[in-house]
Amino acid sequence: MAEPSITARSLTPDAVRSAYALIQPYVHRTPLLTCQTLNTIASAPQSAESLVGTPFEGQAPANPKFRFFFKCENYQRIGAFKARGAFHALLRLLAERGEEEVKRRGVITHSSGNHAQALALAASTLHVPAYIVMPRISTPSKIAGTRSHGAEVTLSGSTSTEREAVVAEIQAKTDAILIPPYDHLDIICGQGTTALEMEEQYRALVSDKPHLSAHASGPDLDAVITPVGGGGLNAGVATFFSGKPTRVFGAEPSFEGADDCRRGLDAGQRVDSVKTLTIADGLRTPVGILNWEVISDRTKVAGVFSVTEDQIKAAMRLVLERMKVVVEPSAVVGLAVCLFNEEFRRLVEKEAGPDGWDVGIVFSGGNTTVEAIGKLFG
Amino acid sequence: MAEPSITARSLTPDAVRSAYALIQPYVHRTPLLTCQTLNTIASAPQSAESLVGTPFEGQAPANPKFRFFFKCENYQRIGAFKARGAFHALLRLLAERGEEEVKRRGVITHSSGNHAQALALAASTLHVPAYIVMPRISTPSKIAGTRSHGAEVTLSGSTSTEREAVVAEIQAKTDAILIPPYDHLDIICGQGTTALEMEEQYRALVSDKPHLSAHASGPDLDAVITPVGGGGLNAGVATFFSGKPTRVFGAEPSFEGADDCRRGLDAGQRVDSVKTLTIADGLRTPVGILNWEVISDRTKVAGVFSVTEDQIKAAMRLVLERMKVVVEPSAVVGLAVCLFNEEFRRLVEKEAGPDGWDVGIVFSGGNTTVEAIGKLFG
Repeated sequence: MAEPSITARSLTPDAVRSAYALIQPYVHRTPLLTCQTLNTIASAPQSAESLVGTPFEGQAPANPKFRFFFKCENYQRIGAFKARGAFHALLRLLAERGEEEVKRRGVITHSSGNHAQALALAASTLHVPAYIVMPRISTPSKIAGTRSHGAEVTLSGSTSTEREAVVAEIQAKTDAILIPPYDHLDIICGQGTTALEMEEQYRALVSDKPHLSAHASGPDLDAVITPVGGGGLNAGVATFFSGKPTRVFGAEPSFEGADDCRRGLDAGQRVDSVKTLTIADGLRTPVGILNWEVISDRTKVAGVFSVTEDQIKAAMRLVLERMKVVVEPSAVVGLAVCLFNEEFRRLVEKEAGPDGWDVGIVFSGGNTTVEAIGKLFG
Repeated sequence: MAEPSITARSLTPDAVRSAYALIQPYVHRTPLLTCQTLNTIASAPQSAESLVGTPFEGQAPANPKFRFFFKCENYQRIGAFKARGAFHALLRLLAERGEEEVKRRGVITHSSGNHAQALALAASTLHVPAYIVMPRISTPSKIAGTRSHGAEVTLSGSTSTEREAVVAEIQAKTDAILIPPYDHLDIICGQGTTALEMEEQYRALVSDKPHLSAHASGPDLDAVITPVGGGGLNAGVATFFSGKPTRVFGAEPSFEGADDCRRGLDAGQRVDSVKTLTIADGLRTPVGILNWEVISDRTKVAGVFSVTEDQIKAAMRLVLERMKVVVEPSAVVGLAVCLFNEEFRRLVEKEAGPDGWDVGIVFSGGNTTVEAIGKLFG
């Protein structure tokens, strides 16, 4: 019998529980919200016209039943789940290497967005110097946000070669330790704590208000769907639910090949480079190597589905206008899959039957601006 | 000794409690949220430049301390506090006139916005026919929302003469009973239930998390501030807090004279007509007669302050981008007063001292669209 890989040995539900014990004082327990209006919309068939031009054209639209439970990581510190992984990775580093070494060397990462702010916050909270390399084209508010936590921000070009050159240069000077945004065991376990809270909150909520869950299948969410960019969140959530009845799904934008994970699963091989300008700007990266090991394991992740830019915008509109909750485009790809991906909707109709499913949806972040909203919908 | 007016006899904290007992099964207990970022921003002095051109130019900016408690009526049914008053007025009407009469005659109102949807919802829930007169220029989504609750919508011109003519015409045919949007005792008491929940939730929250309230002045909010349009919400909130230590303030837009209530208080007489196109479209009406009786009573309302369109937009931006909560422009005038009205900020600094104040802010509604946000900030 083959030895289980390092990934398989390290990525267990217990590892997520240990991560949670470590980071709990530093992160928010974000709310788990429901929205009857969105349940009703998702539980009606799509129009026949909306299937024109798809493989389902001319067929009767699926009629799945959904009850959604939205895990609002847009209300997490720095406005995204990334705070979980960043605190976890840094706390582990301090425990393993000792305070003296980590504070002397500092930590470094490259990120255009939420991971940059998350690591800057974790580092300032734990009194560790942080060097953050951000592409010059990053949103000015994100650069300002990262600086506001006291991190030393260096601007770079936007290709990975350019970014990595700047990182290497700073490391040569400072010996700072790299904390990558997703392809890292501690990051994955940190992000997985999202799932642990979701499960606890779901159980408390439906035990308090049984009418929120129409079926009697027990105390477990039937499914959870998260966005997949680098795959840290999805792999972490799948790690926590592995061996449990809750099925885990991933969601990606399809624009300009941003659905690298879905395509990789079809081809049986990880896609290692992507060049897309999808509006879901947190999901422009290819899935990481460790992350791929988890997501391509069918016992852990039941499938990855993709949606168009228009479907992402339609889902974002519903969340802003109906739920009155501010989310960034990346945050709603899971909801968009439930609303608009006919293949997924058929799967739910078939597997769930008339009772439907209780589906946990992770809203991964809310870092957008009124100008960006105006541009998307103007 | 003069007889107290009908208003004073009817508008008591107990009347608000009775209203709550009636409407509780029909309305949401909306969340009371805090936001450290907004506390920090409001608790720093404004820049000297921001006072240029105001009566405070050249003086040291005030340095008040705020701890905010946001009552999120944007999460109320139909997305605004108006559901409270509409359910209350209709439940009272059913109790007083009997089901047979009310169901035979139906109810009627004219409103461009949230009261229209609120009465339509209350009427459909309680199986009463509803006739709603809406100006042709109303947001299409609000007209659709009102119709979706089964109300019979008739479009009219937008002046009050035009609207009232259409109402009279429908009443001649149907004998429908008018439920006005704000100038009505039952509407005022219904809106006042917002205050009752706020007080309960504030006490529970600070007893659970004492660090949220830095001073030991007891179990009461120091102040509450609400928007003032027709004045139903402000008068209701002031009614609930009358005789209690919590001071009540009102907030208005100043654009094109929309601060009719503030101007009326200065002049010692209610301003009975206003013509403004402030972006705070829920606050374009003059304050009502009964509402004025409450708001002009200094023992009930401690003052009304106004803010500019730019200040409303700046507050709205902060709520959307930092709190990640969707609000309509009318909802943030109270926050804008705390952030930007130097006269109010001086008052708080002087009265509160170094401890600062725990201030309840009512976010009155969240009925906006992504297009409207785009237009405001595009």
